[in-house]
Amino acid sequence: MARAGNLGERRIIEIIWEQLERDPRMSVPFGDDVSATRYRGKNLVVLNTDMLVGKTDIPPMMSYRAAARKAIVMNVSDFAAKGIKPIGIITSLGIPRNMTRKDIVQIGRGLNSGAREYNTYVLGGDTNETEDLIISITVFGLAREGSLMLRNGATPGDILATTGDFGLTSAGLKILIEKLHVPPEIRRKILESVLKPHARLREGIALAKTGAITASIDSSDGLAWCLHEIGKASNVGFTIENLPIAREAYEFAKKHNLDPLELGFYGGEEYELVFTVKPKQWKDVRTVLKEIGGNAIRIGRAIEKEGLFLLRNGRSVKIEEKGFEHFG
Amino acid sequence: MARAGNLGERRIIEIIWEQLERDPRMSVPFGDDVSATRYRGKNLVVLNTDMLVGKTDIPPMMSYRAAARKAIVMNVSDFAAKGIKPIGIITSLGIPRNMTRKDIVQIGRGLNSGAREYNTYVLGGDTNETEDLIISITVFGLAREGSLMLRNGATPGDILATTGDFGLTSAGLKILIEKLHVPPEIRRKILESVLKPHARLREGIALAKTGAITASIDSSDGLAWCLHEIGKASNVGFTIENLPIAREAYEFAKKHNLDPLELGFYGGEEYELVFTVKPKQWKDVRTVLKEIGGNAIRIGRAIEKEGLFLLRNGRSVKIEEKGFEHFG
Repeated sequence: MARAGNLGERRIIEIIWEQLERDPRMSVPFGDDVSATRYRGKNLVVLNTDMLVGKTDIPPMMSYRAAARKAIVMNVSDFAAKGIKPIGIITSLGIPRNMTRKDIVQIGRGLNSGAREYNTYVLGGDTNETEDLIISITVFGLAREGSLMLRNGATPGDILATTGDFGLTSAGLKILIEKLHVPPEIRRKILESVLKPHARLREGIALAKTGAITASIDSSDGLAWCLHEIGKASNVGFTIENLPIAREAYEFAKKHNLDPLELGFYGGEEYELVFTVKPKQWKDVRTVLKEIGGNAIRIGRAIEKEGLFLLRNGRSVKIEEKGFEHFG
Repeated sequence: MARAGNLGERRIIEIIWEQLERDPRMSVPFGDDVSATRYRGKNLVVLNTDMLVGKTDIPPMMSYRAAARKAIVMNVSDFAAKGIKPIGIITSLGIPRNMTRKDIVQIGRGLNSGAREYNTYVLGGDTNETEDLIISITVFGLAREGSLMLRNGATPGDILATTGDFGLTSAGLKILIEKLHVPPEIRRKILESVLKPHARLREGIALAKTGAITASIDSSDGLAWCLHEIGKASNVGFTIENLPIAREAYEFAKKHNLDPLELGFYGGEEYELVFTVKPKQWKDVRTVLKEIGGNAIRIGRAIEKEGLFLLRNGRSVKIEEKGFEHFG
């Protein structure tokens, strides 16, 4: 008999989903980053929920405060990927018996900073006793039907772009978990990418307004996996012409004889937006992001052929589309 | 240093709450059964989240399917107590590694039946690996400001009423956990109260429409505790003139030499609505609930003096306001 440990998280979601009747007012396909349902005509309530689990989501050196903040960031990042402004947050906590009053205060402060950074509030919630720390977050917002950037609209020829560099969180987790050594001058930048991640909410909202984005996702499960996901939803593949690796990740890779592309493709806990753009509007999109202090980096193209391919020295190499595995 | 195990769930919520900045658009006081925030004038988004934890919330003999259904019922019950129709549900699951595919299917089916019984749907969610089963549910709805039945409006003289009898879940948990014997003719009714509870959603929505309800709560933490809660929020006390005990709970108590009132006051996992009514509108309220096939049972009065008092043989006896403690 198949056990949860072998099925994996993605298959478990599918099994649950197969048991559920469909809301006829549902307006975001199953498996996209957020859920949404229509009310009064074309108005949508948009929701996202995700759980931070002590054992698998809190790396060594991350404080409770940073963990609670991250629980909010990872949920807000899904709203960012869809271009939706969060209105409010509620939380359901599972607190182990031996946690101290001081730890609980830190969790409260982390929740508050996470919410306030994205100009929203934690409105309420509930707490329970659990074996391991659980921070379950729900973010909600309102939108008009058709305004969300979904995963499923990319067509061959679309430009593939991202809001930033890759590789820092891979390097960071190798330092924190595998205890790899890191030169002091690049240590802070790398560790901060893991301990204090940021959701690209301003970028996401600006991108949605352009009307030029055909598909969008965040890179929280790693770049290769998120390309697999939008590829599958849109029925396209991708060629990567230029994978931007953060300078610090590149130096870290060189020092440890690691492949920087490996760090870039198979990171995780990383919250860049990855999106496809109608080629004619590419220049506008770049300008819009530049105006708000952001970045649109062109990394490749959507193609007809399924799969992920890297152009390297004029040759096309197939990239394995595996996902980021949680630590712990 | 104080530990979570000694602080208790209610104090932990307060500590978290003390760290949070307040949303100026928040329109339900902290600690009430749901959270709500204003948008566009006087419209509210209403949310509730609560977590079912395997160890503390699933009694022996409860299947995974029944547990998942119950996770929805306990959340819908909070909406019932406020008189709000749920629009949709999302869920964040924590699944232990050794859970089988069949168990996961049962969880999906239980979620679906819970949602469909209250004419709503599970729209999406997320899953994670956890040590113990966690079913975190968020229910959302929309309402107009001022339409919610809060906890804080009871005034001395108001009639105290409930939608049903008490004592069944206390008896049921004693059978399931303490393994007390139960005659077969009352066993089924008692066990069903624990294994297949129902939220009084139709009643709650009908009550809210009367405009006669000054305070409302559900009895999920036990009758004595929920009276303590609305008493504290409304700054009143209560006298109980008549505590309706279910026949089966009464028989069970007699057989085991237990006090039926003890079963009635200190139950839990029980989802009757407990509410206060302006005396002039009491008859209307009874009629409204009768029309939808429900019940409004008058059990006492709100009084000026703080605390909970039972009128028994012409004497007023103080009732201890302790709460239901989770098992496990």
